[in-house]
Amino acid sequence: MFRKCILAAQSYVPGEQPQDKTIIKLNTNENPFQPSLRVNDAVSNALTALNRYPEPTSHVVRNAISELCGIPTHQIVVGNGSDEILSLILRATIDPEDTVGMLDVTYSLYNVLVRLQGGVVVEYPTDNMFIPKKLPSTLNEKLILLASPNAPAGNLLPKLWIEEVCQKVPGLVVIDEAYIDFASKDHLHLLKQFDNVLITRTLSKGYALAGVRLGYVLASEHVITELNKVRDSYNVDRLAQEIAVAALRDQSYYQQVWSKIKTLRTTLAHDLEELDCTVLPSEANFLLVRPQWVSAKELYERLKEKGVLVRYFGQSRLEDYVRITIGTEKELDILSSYLSELRKNRDFLDRQKS
Amino acid sequence: MFRKCILAAQSYVPGEQPQDKTIIKLNTNENPFQPSLRVNDAVSNALTALNRYPEPTSHVVRNAISELCGIPTHQIVVGNGSDEILSLILRATIDPEDTVGMLDVTYSLYNVLVRLQGGVVVEYPTDNMFIPKKLPSTLNEKLILLASPNAPAGNLLPKLWIEEVCQKVPGLVVIDEAYIDFASKDHLHLLKQFDNVLITRTLSKGYALAGVRLGYVLASEHVITELNKVRDSYNVDRLAQEIAVAALRDQSYYQQVWSKIKTLRTTLAHDLEELDCTVLPSEANFLLVRPQWVSAKELYERLKEKGVLVRYFGQSRLEDYVRITIGTEKELDILSSYLSELRKNRDFLDRQKS
Repeated sequence: MFRKCILAAQSYVPGEQPQDKTIIKLNTNENPFQPSLRVNDAVSNALTALNRYPEPTSHVVRNAISELCGIPTHQIVVGNGSDEILSLILRATIDPEDTVGMLDVTYSLYNVLVRLQGGVVVEYPTDNMFIPKKLPSTLNEKLILLASPNAPAGNLLPKLWIEEVCQKVPGLVVIDEAYIDFASKDHLHLLKQFDNVLITRTLSKGYALAGVRLGYVLASEHVITELNKVRDSYNVDRLAQEIAVAALRDQSYYQQVWSKIKTLRTTLAHDLEELDCTVLPSEANFLLVRPQWVSAKELYERLKEKGVLVRYFGQSRLEDYVRITIGTEKELDILSSYLSELRKNRDFLDRQKS
Repeated sequence: MFRKCILAAQSYVPGEQPQDKTIIKLNTNENPFQPSLRVNDAVSNALTALNRYPEPTSHVVRNAISELCGIPTHQIVVGNGSDEILSLILRATIDPEDTVGMLDVTYSLYNVLVRLQGGVVVEYPTDNMFIPKKLPSTLNEKLILLASPNAPAGNLLPKLWIEEVCQKVPGLVVIDEAYIDFASKDHLHLLKQFDNVLITRTLSKGYALAGVRLGYVLASEHVITELNKVRDSYNVDRLAQEIAVAALRDQSYYQQVWSKIKTLRTTLAHDLEELDCTVLPSEANFLLVRPQWVSAKELYERLKEKGVLVRYFGQSRLEDYVRITIGTEKELDILSSYLSELRKNRDFLDRQKS
């Protein structure tokens, strides 16, 4: 009764989402700060008409995005999180056996989405800093999915490398900018340069609205037309639309949030290095961290015992790393002091052994 | 760059959604009353953690549904409106050229969803009251989509006819209960009787929450497993989850709402018949109406000029009908008085002509 590709597919495994609020949650790259206070007023507005369908094209949200990015509203689709946007793109483009390109280490949802369509993943290799190596001389993919900043490493992909991808590939190139608000530059220029480029964004990370589900895509008009066919008419609810507009219009608040997170990122990276951890350079709201004196798995488990949740992936290339989301100053201080304590005990045990 | 089935597909055309609140909106079967007041408190709760991802399986919502229907939580999937639920079902089951059965006059989204998958629609004929005729001796469909109460006619499908469908078909049978809260009986017994039955429901109509997007499906566990693979991890946002639970738990309020709408339905049907309109028996929150003294198209247009929006479909079988949502008493009084006025002018013009 079910399609072969669905029976063969596996679910995406999201990070743990314990509902216990005493846990220090540094595992799924949420923003530790609250969203703009304007969101509360926006919610009150939406509450007066919950019995009515939302406006089907998220027109007010597209207006706010357009003002912010300088991209016209007819080049924007708004979705129920950028997860839905990515799903729309795959469903519009990938038939069984079609190939989809991506880096060998990247956001694991991409692989799941390709398999749901019965597509085939083509991996482009990265070096030990997770930076893409030289591209093959020809690219035949129907679609390429790139996260920049990439997850879970945190690096922006090199500008020339991305441009080469856009030029070489016959299909579409998605640049997933989920973490762009924490980065030093974006990829909007590529949208003007190449008509096969799609840029996806989310309000989950930068705008502290993971609980609301609001993502969007910027693309050429002919791409938007096809994505809108696949989209449910009322995919974004009234509350999410009102909240998104309020948040997008409060840039001055969010500039402060992003600046704070970048400062905390620098401090945390420094503290972790002092604690003999290797930290990859990051332009996102997380750090990929390799402890030198304990296995990543054990570190993850020890921290979890203490009520601090970080992300451990356990796959081969990531086996030695944990990914730590930038939390509040207080949360990161607690993390650092636990790490420091763990390391001291480890030294003590090592000394006893020898 | 796009799949053949997508390029060939057309978008679903939702009813008009003017944002002007002075319009009397009787065109998209929304509930004219406000949702339970408990929804407001629920929203306040959710506002404290919008920066965090929602619980991925909508566990609290499934609990509330389970208590209400007596179906265990592992037989429930919650979605971003029942539109998303229907889309999940089609994406999990239909490959290009697969056949999907449905009545020849039913919810027009079904046809759109089948075409998006490259599937082929098989229509089962209905009589002039939109009641299904005798089934073919064999059914080979991979999936059958039935709305009961059906839209836009409003009738419950005959029990024996549905049972025959469930027995005969090798594939899955979806019973879309979007309007079940206004009907005299539901189809839960079929879920126990047949393991190929899926029942979909929404909070848009009965619970006055069209703006929130919350639907769900009840099905056998093996069906739920496959649907969950296709579902985005965080498909239902925090606000929607909290709101849904609050609403589902306020049954006493909603019983009053449904009873009121059923009373208004009876009154409106009576008034329309007095005004020489044929009204089909309805178990939903709308009436399918055939005026005898004016074309349906003209009636739609005249009412629109007056600021009253009803639904006119214009396809062959529905050409002579408008569908009118049950609004508030005041809205329906205004509608009736406009109709009465129109008819008087019509009589006057007719008399002048003759």
